[in-house]
Amino acid sequence: MSLIVTGTIGIDDIVTPSGHANQVLGGSCMYFSAAASFYSPVRLVAVVGEDFPPAFRDSFKQFPNVDLQGLETRKGGKTFRWGGKYHANMNSRDTLFTELGVVGEHPAKVPGAYADSKLVFLANSPPAVQMGFIEQLPQRKLTVADTMDLWINVAKDDLLKLLKRVDGLVLNYDEAELLTGKPNSVSAGRAILELGPRFVVIKKGEHGCLLVHRDGMCALPAYPTEKIVDPTGCGDTFAGGMMGALAHQLQDSSADAGSYAAVRRALVHGTVVASYTIEAFSLDRLKQIKKSDLDKRFEEYAGMVRV
Amino acid sequence: MSLIVTGTIGIDDIVTPSGHANQVLGGSCMYFSAAASFYSPVRLVAVVGEDFPPAFRDSFKQFPNVDLQGLETRKGGKTFRWGGKYHANMNSRDTLFTELGVVGEHPAKVPGAYADSKLVFLANSPPAVQMGFIEQLPQRKLTVADTMDLWINVAKDDLLKLLKRVDGLVLNYDEAELLTGKPNSVSAGRAILELGPRFVVIKKGEHGCLLVHRDGMCALPAYPTEKIVDPTGCGDTFAGGMMGALAHQLQDSSADAGSYAAVRRALVHGTVVASYTIEAFSLDRLKQIKKSDLDKRFEEYAGMVRV
Repeated sequence: MSLIVTGTIGIDDIVTPSGHANQVLGGSCMYFSAAASFYSPVRLVAVVGEDFPPAFRDSFKQFPNVDLQGLETRKGGKTFRWGGKYHANMNSRDTLFTELGVVGEHPAKVPGAYADSKLVFLANSPPAVQMGFIEQLPQRKLTVADTMDLWINVAKDDLLKLLKRVDGLVLNYDEAELLTGKPNSVSAGRAILELGPRFVVIKKGEHGCLLVHRDGMCALPAYPTEKIVDPTGCGDTFAGGMMGALAHQLQDSSADAGSYAAVRRALVHGTVVASYTIEAFSLDRLKQIKKSDLDKRFEEYAGMVRV
Repeated sequence: MSLIVTGTIGIDDIVTPSGHANQVLGGSCMYFSAAASFYSPVRLVAVVGEDFPPAFRDSFKQFPNVDLQGLETRKGGKTFRWGGKYHANMNSRDTLFTELGVVGEHPAKVPGAYADSKLVFLANSPPAVQMGFIEQLPQRKLTVADTMDLWINVAKDDLLKLLKRVDGLVLNYDEAELLTGKPNSVSAGRAILELGPRFVVIKKGEHGCLLVHRDGMCALPAYPTEKIVDPTGCGDTFAGGMMGALAHQLQDSSADAGSYAAVRRALVHGTVVASYTIEAFSLDRLKQIKKSDLDKRFEEYAGMVRV
């Protein structure tokens, strides 16, 4: 099934206990697309400014499954910039700065050729922008959104409206608690289902993820690793692997893309691709690997959890 | 294979966000034995005081697989007492008081009939006491110890000596970091293998566990639940399920009890029995369930993680 995503493409400054990287390629939509493209073609809709470096544009060539028809370079605009510093355990971070640039203006338009998109992923951006995006996609069969603490705090009403329109939500465990007031992830997940989605994936970083679906529940561990260089984009590539695998699994357009079984299996692909993302700064590791590397680690992971 | 355990049997006062329980049966050896006894006979070696309530003694009748030949009631002695209060997320707690009583005196003697024990579990107690225990068990084939932050802080030399004598170590993730100085659990696990053990199981509460073994590594999620009443004893029953399952699996005394495959599979049984422990105060839930309940949840868990 055709997969479309919108979100940010940006320039990041990152400090981790392993080192630092200045002015590197980043953004939720960028990470998502690169990861998903191992599994399926991806239609990308995003805006960058005129300052977007040509070298970053060349990076897309390493992910040829990403269709760039929806990438707008806005005249006179500034590319989204983000800076973050990770704590010693790599599981939490401080945002050093956020410069919205073109992301704070009007969103990119969905090209006409994308109007028939079936699987939709709303990478992290303001809920009102996410809502505006899905309204341009009347043929969507499965819509999944990511969100963050910022929107829960400053745009909760918009987010609650959006949740009535999406099939799935992906968010961090602390954000699930913030949204629902429930410190237990299972309880938070169930409470989120009451808000609209058919399933919610609660991301727990090094502790894996929890899927709470109307038809079942499962917890999966992260791939255990000590090769942690930069966690930036792990959540986005996790979602990219998940949605890409769903798009690949569901060649038959009459299939139920959001079934418990389909989502559960897709989560393992998300887990595997995220485990590579963390091994280098920016998208550096994803640029090096092949689909066969992902398949190999998938088998290793399957052997690890086999009971 | 025969399984023996030593540790504490005590009287607990517990406060959790779900409620409180005063003067209830507890202690590392008590929880471990009850859990292990679903899978295998268990030889218990522990000391209580004269104040140990007759009703608690009756509790053992509900776990008939626990052999009480090594339970000493010390004249004039006071039973170990512990009080704890859990935080809102149930994943951390404060110790309100610890009264060692007979546990602070000389340890219980291993009965002669137990001298041929093959699998040995050293539930949480001072490392020097744990060392004294294994020296009475010359025929042991697999020795696994639990420990805690207290001993890492106040008896590290004794603990390091003990680690050279055990096959496996079970401890919490924050204790693994405290022992090794490594915030990443995989790195901490590898560092612990350098100290002597062949494997280490790092417990992460609601986030499951990590096995780092000389022959492999695996992460397993906890059984996801919102039915969390009292986490006390979860770690001990996790170890009990693991060691009980190993004792059951290894009927052939020439088998390698500590192989990666055997320990990995046994961990799932530990995970399942711990998921029942948390559903009520003290040992109340373990008193209600049957082996068939554990088997059923084992199958459910296997289905959840199957890839």
